[in-house]
Amino acid sequence: MRTVRLYTENDLAAGLSLALPSAQAHYLSNVLRLKEGAPVILFNGRDGEWQSKIVSLRRNQAAVTLEHLIRPQETDPDLWLLFAPVKRARIDFIAAKATELGVSAIAPVFTDNTAVSRVNEERLYANAIEAAEQCGRLSVPVVQPVATLTERIRSWPASRHILLCDETGGGTPIVEALSGLPLNLPWAILCGPEGGFSPQELDLLVENPIVRRVGLGPRILRADTAVLAALACWQAVLGDWRG
Amino acid sequence: MRTVRLYTENDLAAGLSLALPSAQAHYLSNVLRLKEGAPVILFNGRDGEWQSKIVSLRRNQAAVTLEHLIRPQETDPDLWLLFAPVKRARIDFIAAKATELGVSAIAPVFTDNTAVSRVNEERLYANAIEAAEQCGRLSVPVVQPVATLTERIRSWPASRHILLCDETGGGTPIVEALSGLPLNLPWAILCGPEGGFSPQELDLLVENPIVRRVGLGPRILRADTAVLAALACWQAVLGDWRG
Repeated sequence: MRTVRLYTENDLAAGLSLALPSAQAHYLSNVLRLKEGAPVILFNGRDGEWQSKIVSLRRNQAAVTLEHLIRPQETDPDLWLLFAPVKRARIDFIAAKATELGVSAIAPVFTDNTAVSRVNEERLYANAIEAAEQCGRLSVPVVQPVATLTERIRSWPASRHILLCDETGGGTPIVEALSGLPLNLPWAILCGPEGGFSPQELDLLVENPIVRRVGLGPRILRADTAVLAALACWQAVLGDWRG
Repeated sequence: MRTVRLYTENDLAAGLSLALPSAQAHYLSNVLRLKEGAPVILFNGRDGEWQSKIVSLRRNQAAVTLEHLIRPQETDPDLWLLFAPVKRARIDFIAAKATELGVSAIAPVFTDNTAVSRVNEERLYANAIEAAEQCGRLSVPVVQPVATLTERIRSWPASRHILLCDETGGGTPIVEALSGLPLNLPWAILCGPEGGFSPQELDLLVENPIVRRVGLGPRILRADTAVLAALACWQAVLGDWRG
């Protein structure tokens, strides 16, 4: 069994002892049934990954001591995911999979055809933490507050390129659109709702020179499938899957 | 609302009338609450896509008449998915997503580290049908009977290339591995279980010259994430996302 990895907001350094929040104590003691002396791994998104040891453990109380650095902090690709929220199980899924696929920020955006009217950002963040712990990341993506797509685009940072996933068939094939571009630039992947973007939204987007409009083949992908597919292609062509 | 699409095993031709199975009649009448005269679209994987009309509809009985061909049958990429089965919700998910991502066959394979001991092939096929209806495909992938990986590899067709998704870090980055290869060849994508392939399995696979061993980045992907990511990259580089 792999050693359990836990995300913490605390600073991490050799010799430190930390009390863990009760939810993590419960998980170690009642779910994983670990004992005092068992190894755990901690990371906080800043100080790398630390081999640690449980020094006390009761039902809802746990303390760990940090032993040594296993991996120094790494720089993640600067990749945001903007997506139209979908219903409960699928939005959890998107947060988890986007984390596995290495995004630095998760940003739900309401679009003209979005059917969902509320987003639980805390729940998205909890899914992202769990996925980060499992996939070996040294960071957890930021969950940005939900906003409308129009608001987001009006205050968009000029240097951040947008990969617009367009189901209308008007886009360039994704690998063709990304090949040969400079590396290490900030990007955002933007995926729409199952009804697609409205003509007004598409007009607003495509007139912007930092937007690359791409297609994901001839079949109609579910919103969550399109998110995963676009993230995988971006990582494979421009991101940290290049080896 | 998009017109409902239904898969059928019947032959399709202009003017034909068909009785639908009771499950489809139930879906049209009780779930979608359609009425006689409503349009439906039929496809069977051989005869293209047909605009049709409901001519009689009761609770569990429905008949349709075919009007005209909308799209002639297309040739799908010849892409198999071989994957180590995972638990219930995630295996349903793999069958549906692989269908959206255009595979021609879904083949569960038991590997040395596979934790699941039974596969419901009918259930996989039902998920594939539903996904094919929704994503606009003109075909439904075949679900191959479950077998062990070793059995599959021992009787492997010599002309079918294998993309081996290898979590050990020994693979070539996926886009590098696929770029510049000839198009329109038969392929299979092979994804292992969450424990990875055993050393014996890797030895058996990598000695075979038709196997390309690829990596999917530095994070540890869940089995279902790896399947989707590899399928998306394959379609984008060698498949029908090339435009």
